Amino acid sequence: MTSKPETAYEQLKDRLATISDLGSVRILLFWDRQTYMPRGAVAGRAKQVATLSRISHEMLTDPKTEMLLDCAGEPDPSLEEGALIRRARRDYERAAKLPADLVARTSQVTALAEAAWVQARKESDWSLFTPHLAEVISLKREAAEFLGVGGSSLRSPRERLRAGGKECAAGGDVRGAQEGDHAAHPVGRKAGEGRRGRAASLYGEFDEARQEEFGRTVISAFGYDWGRGRQDRSVHPFCIRTGPGDVRMTTRFDGTWLSPALFGTMYEAGHALYTQGVDPAYARTPLDGGTSTGVHESQSRLWENLVGRSRPFWSHYYPKLREVFSEALKGVDVEAFYRAINVLKPSKIRVEADEVTYNLHILLRFELEVALIEGTLSVADLPTAWNAKMEEYLGIIPEDDSAGVLQDIHWASGFFGHFPSYAIGNVLSVQLFDKALEACPEIPEQIQAGEFSTLLGWLREKVHRHGSRYYPDELIERVTGRPLDTAPYLYYLNEKFGELYELY
Amino acid sequence: MTSKPETAYEQLKDRLATISDLGSVRILLFWDRQTYMPRGAVAGRAKQVATLSRISHEMLTDPKTEMLLDCAGEPDPSLEEGALIRRARRDYERAAKLPADLVARTSQVTALAEAAWVQARKESDWSLFTPHLAEVISLKREAAEFLGVGGSSLRSPRERLRAGGKECAAGGDVRGAQEGDHAAHPVGRKAGEGRRGRAASLYGEFDEARQEEFGRTVISAFGYDWGRGRQDRSVHPFCIRTGPGDVRMTTRFDGTWLSPALFGTMYEAGHALYTQGVDPAYARTPLDGGTSTGVHESQSRLWENLVGRSRPFWSHYYPKLREVFSEALKGVDVEAFYRAINVLKPSKIRVEADEVTYNLHILLRFELEVALIEGTLSVADLPTAWNAKMEEYLGIIPEDDSAGVLQDIHWASGFFGHFPSYAIGNVLSVQLFDKALEACPEIPEQIQAGEFSTLLGWLREKVHRHGSRYYPDELIERVTGRPLDTAPYLYYLNEKFGELYELY
Repeated sequence: MTSKPETAYEQLKDRLATISDLGSVRILLFWDRQTYMPRGAVAGRAKQVATLSRISHEMLTDPKTEMLLDCAGEPDPSLEEGALIRRARRDYERAAKLPADLVARTSQVTALAEAAWVQARKESDWSLFTPHLAEVISLKREAAEFLGVGGSSLRSPRERLRAGGKECAAGGDVRGAQEGDHAAHPVGRKAGEGRRGRAASLYGEFDEARQEEFGRTVISAFGYDWGRGRQDRSVHPFCIRTGPGDVRMTTRFDGTWLSPALFGTMYEAGHALYTQGVDPAYARTPLDGGTSTGVHESQSRLWENLVGRSRPFWSHYYPKLREVFSEALKGVDVEAFYRAINVLKPSKIRVEADEVTYNLHILLRFELEVALIEGTLSVADLPTAWNAKMEEYLGIIPEDDSAGVLQDIHWASGFFGHFPSYAIGNVLSVQLFDKALEACPEIPEQIQAGEFSTLLGWLREKVHRHGSRYYPDELIERVTGRPLDTAPYLYYLNEKFGELYELY
Repeated sequence: MTSKPETAYEQLKDRLATISDLGSVRILLFWDRQTYMPRGAVAGRAKQVATLSRISHEMLTDPKTEMLLDCAGEPDPSLEEGALIRRARRDYERAAKLPADLVARTSQVTALAEAAWVQARKESDWSLFTPHLAEVISLKREAAEFLGVGGSSLRSPRERLRAGGKECAAGGDVRGAQEGDHAAHPVGRKAGEGRRGRAASLYGEFDEARQEEFGRTVISAFGYDWGRGRQDRSVHPFCIRTGPGDVRMTTRFDGTWLSPALFGTMYEAGHALYTQGVDPAYARTPLDGGTSTGVHESQSRLWENLVGRSRPFWSHYYPKLREVFSEALKGVDVEAFYRAINVLKPSKIRVEADEVTYNLHILLRFELEVALIEGTLSVADLPTAWNAKMEEYLGIIPEDDSAGVLQDIHWASGFFGHFPSYAIGNVLSVQLFDKALEACPEIPEQIQAGEFSTLLGWLREKVHRHGSRYYPDELIERVTGRPLDTAPYLYYLNEKFGELYELY
């Protein structure tokens, strides 16, 4: 389209743009699978995805890429060009360890596994998913061998997985952070016991179309750009970037329960705002998109929790919500509503968990996935192990696998070691929000007026626009002056829920 | 995914499967652009499409492909394997004449042109579309030079275009067939004058959701498999195959006019049934999908007109339709309705034209597109030329460009020489339907009972399952014992409209 690129750097960028296009298309295919694709297309689509993965992998790992990287020289990451080369080299080196066939097979197998998962979840029939998950895990173990230091020791996959998690963690140690949450703060235990204040007002008749409209109003006010995004429905809600100017989020609605769509919409919008805020100059380069899943989660959790479960927010929005659902919310005042959405009560479902017990869901998943990859837990035993841990950590056992081990799509998609980023996101969300408040103390007042532009502006300036230019730990250090730090998060939880539960 | 292919033929098939995957994905991207893609994604998406086109073209025209074709030997087209090799060689030889860069640029430019067309059509502002169309035409002329015998004579693109049209024509001569329609049959003229019996009963209040539901009921009865297909909405209705087990049709609804969605749905379902009927063994090979656009149109027009505008069909479905729209259809009996849907009355819009004047829309477009490619008509002069021809052939001038030169997406998509296939489809639809009736005289009676399986079964057996195994002229000869023949079509029109208009 443009004239022939000349320098090695330009040739490299051109090559990476092609790879980026293929990646975007693959993500659109994921979106389509989860939203509109007819069931009969599952097998054919899986092959298409494998084809794209293979071509893209071959292009990235082609000796030409390495040559161009070498010619582009030692990068200076303080410059954009250098940051781009650094990312590209990292992507190249990681990819070069994996055979194209394994990459293609993994794409095909996970696409089939996702479809099986949808069916298994619908019918709450674990056996429909078992063979698929076993295949995914076997491929992941194979990949861990290639990525690891070699040998067939079980430590190797585990190390890789932990290292992967660590990277998500913006420099922090995943497990440490989680164990910190779990053990350290007093409301953690409280949540385990605390059943009082069941959020009855969130249950009732809530027309789905109206829920959708209300959610759209809220995230439009946040700053979600509908000209560069969409919202659809899917079994498991998600938000993905399907190319420049194209961010797609999905939502799950429950006509008898307000929470899932209400907070799910704000949560996914947080991801979307990050993606939409990246410097457009980074389109089709490795710098486009968020810098890590952990930082990405910090954005979604920030909008869902620090904005969407706060008093200032509801002091503005509750009257509007009550107008929409006047019948269902009759007799519920704003304070009662605020307390209802912040009830600490162990939930079967992670995405519907309160802010405190949420992290226990992550800990549970992380321990199980490490065991699966290490081979100390078999797929057949997974549901039992799941339920045992649910009882141990949250004191509840899901009534069926659909509300238990089958609730998340991640393992079907081959996302192992991804869950910790949610906990990291929780931690970072507070660290970043504190910093925003420090710089712009007027933010809560603005939120109370339904105004989000100062907050969004600060996030855009400090986090969003940089895309993947900085590595996650660099970014957090740059923005907050410190590495990842669990203290602000624990302080926040204690303050918020201490007040709500009169712990002082 | 499978073990390494061994013979040259297996290697060739493997390569073609990859190319087929890329083609399917490109088509899904088209579907997405027309249905759900946010506007901000236009530019980025156009680049993605260009990337896919380039990769797929490079893979097809790679010397390896030719080598494998050569090794696969002289094909015997009477065998499946031979038919596949023959198609593949034809695809290869055609593609090899075009530079990859031109192919990629054309993909990008047409993707942008389609988006501009949507906007221009919405605002009825020709100027928004002009620069895009000019660019598309320039690329098409360039392609014609590469495909042609060389030299820069203006005849060359024209010859190519006509040859392209001819191929669609299943052996017949496009222009001849059209001129035949135009001049030969007595009702053609009648339509030009005939304003009597304006189809007033088709206008009124027709709830869109109910229209959609009725349409779905009808095409489900036809045999449309929803497990392997979808129906969405788009500005310009279409039906495409986005991979094995995945056929997507779109519809345009008008809440005050029954015809567009009613007949549009049956029309697109006709395409879908053809696609869904192809032998699944042909998936990811050049034999998948219909054998030509002309034969494809024969299927859509057959279901829309020979079934959907027939007395037997409405004797079954009219009571049901009237139940759904009891208010709007009050006082309209089945005969009046039958006459209403078969009124001969020149229309501004091709897809809403009656069976007779329809072909005049094609003639008009074909003449204009030949002039555009030859360079005897400039893009700037196109709206004037359009309106002049509308007046000449149909006696009406559209009130604005939206209802005129901007009504069809084809030229934006770079489909030049495609329109004649609609006229060819009309001709073939009758030739094939006659043959079906000859073999299964019970078909009309079954249609009258809302039963379509004998008709569909015959079409599957004779036409659909073969996909692209036979070239169009071979297929038509095989099925009907004759080459494309306009006589049955003209006879059908004279009989049907002669009776309706008491011409005897």
